[in-house]
Amino acid sequence: MPLPKSKIDEYYMNCALELARNGRRCSPNPRVGCVIVRGGEIIGRGWHDICGGPHAEVEAVRDAGGDIAEAEVYVTLEPCSHYGKTPPCADMLVEHRPKRVVAGMTDPNPRVAGRGLEKLRAAGIEVKSGVLEKECKWMNRGFIRRMSQARPWVTVKCAASLDGRVALSNGESRWVTGTEARVCVHRMRAENDAVLTGVGTVIADDPLLTVRDAPGETPLRVILDRELRTPPESKILAGGAVIFTTEAAPEERIPALSAAGAVVESIPNGAPFLGEALKRLCAMDVNYLMVEAGAGVTSAFIKEGLCDELALFLAPKLMGRGLSYTDGLEFSSMAEVPRLRDIKYTNCGEDLLIRGVFECSPDL
Amino acid sequence: MPLPKSKIDEYYMNCALELARNGRRCSPNPRVGCVIVRGGEIIGRGWHDICGGPHAEVEAVRDAGGDIAEAEVYVTLEPCSHYGKTPPCADMLVEHRPKRVVAGMTDPNPRVAGRGLEKLRAAGIEVKSGVLEKECKWMNRGFIRRMSQARPWVTVKCAASLDGRVALSNGESRWVTGTEARVCVHRMRAENDAVLTGVGTVIADDPLLTVRDAPGETPLRVILDRELRTPPESKILAGGAVIFTTEAAPEERIPALSAAGAVVESIPNGAPFLGEALKRLCAMDVNYLMVEAGAGVTSAFIKEGLCDELALFLAPKLMGRGLSYTDGLEFSSMAEVPRLRDIKYTNCGEDLLIRGVFECSPDL
Repeated sequence: MPLPKSKIDEYYMNCALELARNGRRCSPNPRVGCVIVRGGEIIGRGWHDICGGPHAEVEAVRDAGGDIAEAEVYVTLEPCSHYGKTPPCADMLVEHRPKRVVAGMTDPNPRVAGRGLEKLRAAGIEVKSGVLEKECKWMNRGFIRRMSQARPWVTVKCAASLDGRVALSNGESRWVTGTEARVCVHRMRAENDAVLTGVGTVIADDPLLTVRDAPGETPLRVILDRELRTPPESKILAGGAVIFTTEAAPEERIPALSAAGAVVESIPNGAPFLGEALKRLCAMDVNYLMVEAGAGVTSAFIKEGLCDELALFLAPKLMGRGLSYTDGLEFSSMAEVPRLRDIKYTNCGEDLLIRGVFECSPDL
Repeated sequence: MPLPKSKIDEYYMNCALELARNGRRCSPNPRVGCVIVRGGEIIGRGWHDICGGPHAEVEAVRDAGGDIAEAEVYVTLEPCSHYGKTPPCADMLVEHRPKRVVAGMTDPNPRVAGRGLEKLRAAGIEVKSGVLEKECKWMNRGFIRRMSQARPWVTVKCAASLDGRVALSNGESRWVTGTEARVCVHRMRAENDAVLTGVGTVIADDPLLTVRDAPGETPLRVILDRELRTPPESKILAGGAVIFTTEAAPEERIPALSAAGAVVESIPNGAPFLGEALKRLCAMDVNYLMVEAGAGVTSAFIKEGLCDELALFLAPKLMGRGLSYTDGLEFSSMAEVPRLRDIKYTNCGEDLLIRGVFECSPDL
């Protein structure tokens, strides 16, 4: 009995998803993979590798030797219809006359939003969309969040003991988690476009927040600092950082911070501080933001419902009375308590990494 | 190439371990499994099923039709050498003239402690001990703990949110974990010989601590109650419970509690309260004790280093500021913090069950 066509479509879409994962530095673009199939054989493979480089469809057509007549094209995201850094992929495909184009999802970019598929249909090419849509959307959750909610995909990272503590009652916190967890945190930083902390952490720990123990680039570093208390000699400023502050902050502190490498962004009184910071990060092309901060900032993001994902490292120890990463949250009924779904857990050396999506995170 | 003899020994010991798991209600005896092998074939299988019933070796010899001459006997625990509820297995084996006896571990019972193996050797039977010793010891960790430390194997069970809270700051705690976790707790109760709580929990929640949502028997129920504040109408007393109290407690409260089903055990002033309670539970043949209590009792067991295992149910939610199960613990340096090893985790419905062994738990 031959496989039903829908299963065949899923098989090739999965191949395209695998290729998409090869993309190294696509942000702010989405990660896209493409396979071209004729006579039951894959004749072309491509993926978007780096922002500004060729799109996945262009690479796959090239890999097929330029001849894709009567073939089927599987692409994880709708081919683009607009001129960006490269010409529209939909036009390119129309020229090459494939028989059928199967897309994982439509492009949430309002400049595309179905127009790519429409162009193909108008040219008489058979079109199907929504194959492995959930997986394709998950792969580009940051791009979708920026396009549809004008904010990045926000992952809150915490490292605590099994009883939820990040420090002893005397403040001691070195070290809660082990070496492997630190390596994993650096890998997560490299996977994000920006990493955010609060001025309290900057003053207390003077962190670098760079990527050192894993391959990849250091993301944009961001400090929330309503009163501009960041010391200009803070290590995080070297190599550049963005500081979000308020109009109330003393302006005379800006020149020293700028000289040290900071870009100071002032948020007007009256605007929601966190929401506005996220909107501006979005305008800076940040698809993925990692919050690596103390209890105050962490709790504030959770309280305002601005978190999409939790990445919680749990160390196999009990620290007893002390500080928790949610000390800034308080609820009067169990019904109000933030919940997580799609929980996944993995070993990370001696520690455990629990990841989950906040139930308040809007659907993709 | 034939398997080395040591690998063959491990293979059959594993078969014996699997059989041992069939034992239904062995406590206070250990769980034991036995396979008898001749000419590369298992000719007899047996396990200790229920306290007072035949031992694993007796069952295996019977299963082999009584003829085990020149065979090899694999048994997870050294054959007994003393008259208990049944005659000594070592004597029985000597009569049946196997060629060789392989034991997983020696018997920690001081009335045996190597004498069983010695009897076999003296009769000219080849003897080997310590095959899959770690696994065999783990299977009878409670029996070993009682025999060698005069205390039960103590498992502390907690149910908390991902930030380690067991209740909101207003005390609300219904429900932290889900239905599957409750079923799992009942299964754990059935696997323990006793379940212990504090009078605070009895007064606040009036729990039954019975096995209702899983197969198996309700274990002995135990209350720590220094001042005999347990209300005689508490549900936990129906069907019997042990209350540990102190000499300072008002004696006039005992008759009503006894009438309600309680056995009141008074611990002399000056004796370590928890340590003495564990010693007495040991004398009541409790191999496995589960602590299901509030922060005070839980923290006290951890603080005094009397816990062997943690069973922590984590619900995928963040409860914020509130009560933690370790609020009774406080440490002044990270070096003092209790750590856990051999961490295992499993899904339990929507919750996560993390189990680990306290580093302070003595070697088996």
